[in-house]
Amino acid sequence: MIAEHNTILCETNGDSHIIDLTSNVQETVAESGINTGQAALLVHGSTAALSTLEYEPGLVNHDIRTAMERLAPHDAYYKHEETWQDDNGHSHVRASTVGPSLALPIVDGFIPLGTWQQIVLIDFDTRPRKRTVHLSMIGIGRS
Amino acid sequence: MIAEHNTILCETNGDSHIIDLTSNVQETVAESGINTGQAALLVHGSTAALSTLEYEPGLVNHDIRTAMERLAPHDAYYKHEETWQDDNGHSHVRASTVGPSLALPIVDGFIPLGTWQQIVLIDFDTRPRKRTVHLSMIGIGRS
Amino acid sequence: MIAEHNTILCETNGDSHIIDLTSNVQETVAESGINTGQAALLVHGSTAALSTLEYEPGLVNHDIRTAMERLAPHDAYYKHEETWQDDNGHSHVRASTVGPSLALPIVDGFIPLGTWQQIVLIDFDTRPRKRTVHLSMIGIGRS
Repeated sequence: MIAEHNTILCETNGDSHIIDLTSNVQETVAESGINTGQAALLVHGSTAALSTLEYEPGLVNHDIRTAMERLAPHDAYYKHEETWQDDNGHSHVRASTVGPSLALPIVDGFIPLGTWQQIVLIDFDTRPRKRTVHLSMIGIGRS
Repeated sequence: MIAEHNTILCETNGDSHIIDLTSNVQETVAESGINTGQAALLVHGSTAALSTLEYEPGLVNHDIRTAMERLAPHDAYYKHEETWQDDNGHSHVRASTVGPSLALPIVDGFIPLGTWQQIVLIDFDTRPRKRTVHLSMIGIGRS
Repeated sequence: MIAEHNTILCETNGDSHIIDLTSNVQETVAESGINTGQAALLVHGSTAALSTLEYEPGLVNHDIRTAMERLAPHDAYYKHEETWQDDNGHSHVRASTVGPSLALPIVDGFIPLGTWQQIVLIDFDTRPRKRTVHLSMIGIGRS
């Protein structure tokens, strides 16, 4: 049985910047030597989220942001901003709704994704951030 | 230690068609022989999502669809559609928001769900699709 | 290899009441003796959800609730209520959208969260509820 953890680091611009983590995740899984098992991914911090998405410019630069504006407009009133005098109440709400974690099967040594399905980090914060994604993998190696 | 993977296949009508996967998942977990552990579920493709839901006709045929129309109306403008000349920008946005994966505890040989809590696939695409759900299970057997 | 399960119990007021589970989860993980591995968390029932959130009063008492009203207003029409003659159609829709489960890495014996990132249960039901969160942990101990 193999159990390993690793981190993926990235820099974002904030403002719903979406980063494609697929290659990083697949390489980290491959290096673990696990053939059959699971990866648990968690983004560190409460203003970013993890999901999967077709990584093409329309969705990445426009459509996700537009829908998130419907759910949590950046210029609505947020009581969060009375606590901290900052401007990222909408960032927190969006991140908690999309969610911070992914449970990913490892099958034949990699994560079985669709061709147009990428693992993404969405940074909802209002400023550039350095982000850490924790990745723990557990399973059995090639027999 | 047991580590296994399996797939669940289903056919959907698209347009927020919701499929109850509970029996399939519970049977697959039972066949693995795992008593205590975890199952990671991931839907293949970027226009469907996994969650849990009370599987009754009102929620399944009406209420989820209506809320998703508020988040990502099917007739809004999506830049995605300039990339592909298709019509499923809203499908992608909805699927990424609800999320593609579930992390499910295995307790005493099955997934401990509420009576009115079913494991569901929601297909947000605009046409019928054949869907694959990857399921990896890891844990220890009955001692 | 260690595989254990446990439950966390809490009482909520319903109506988007948010409970901070972080201490409970971290203590349960510590007691398992796992150093490197994963925790899968699942809330029992279809009207509550799990996520992470900065646990401060503005987000907890106001901002999450306000955004969920945009997604699924409590006073909209829900066909669910024709099935059961109850009043919690919006609760189901919100819970399924946020999601019932979390996949959490265990690194050096605990869940690596941000300082302002707490593990939370959000109870979307319309009345006080006793809630059970199932937690299964798997991994390897300190060597």
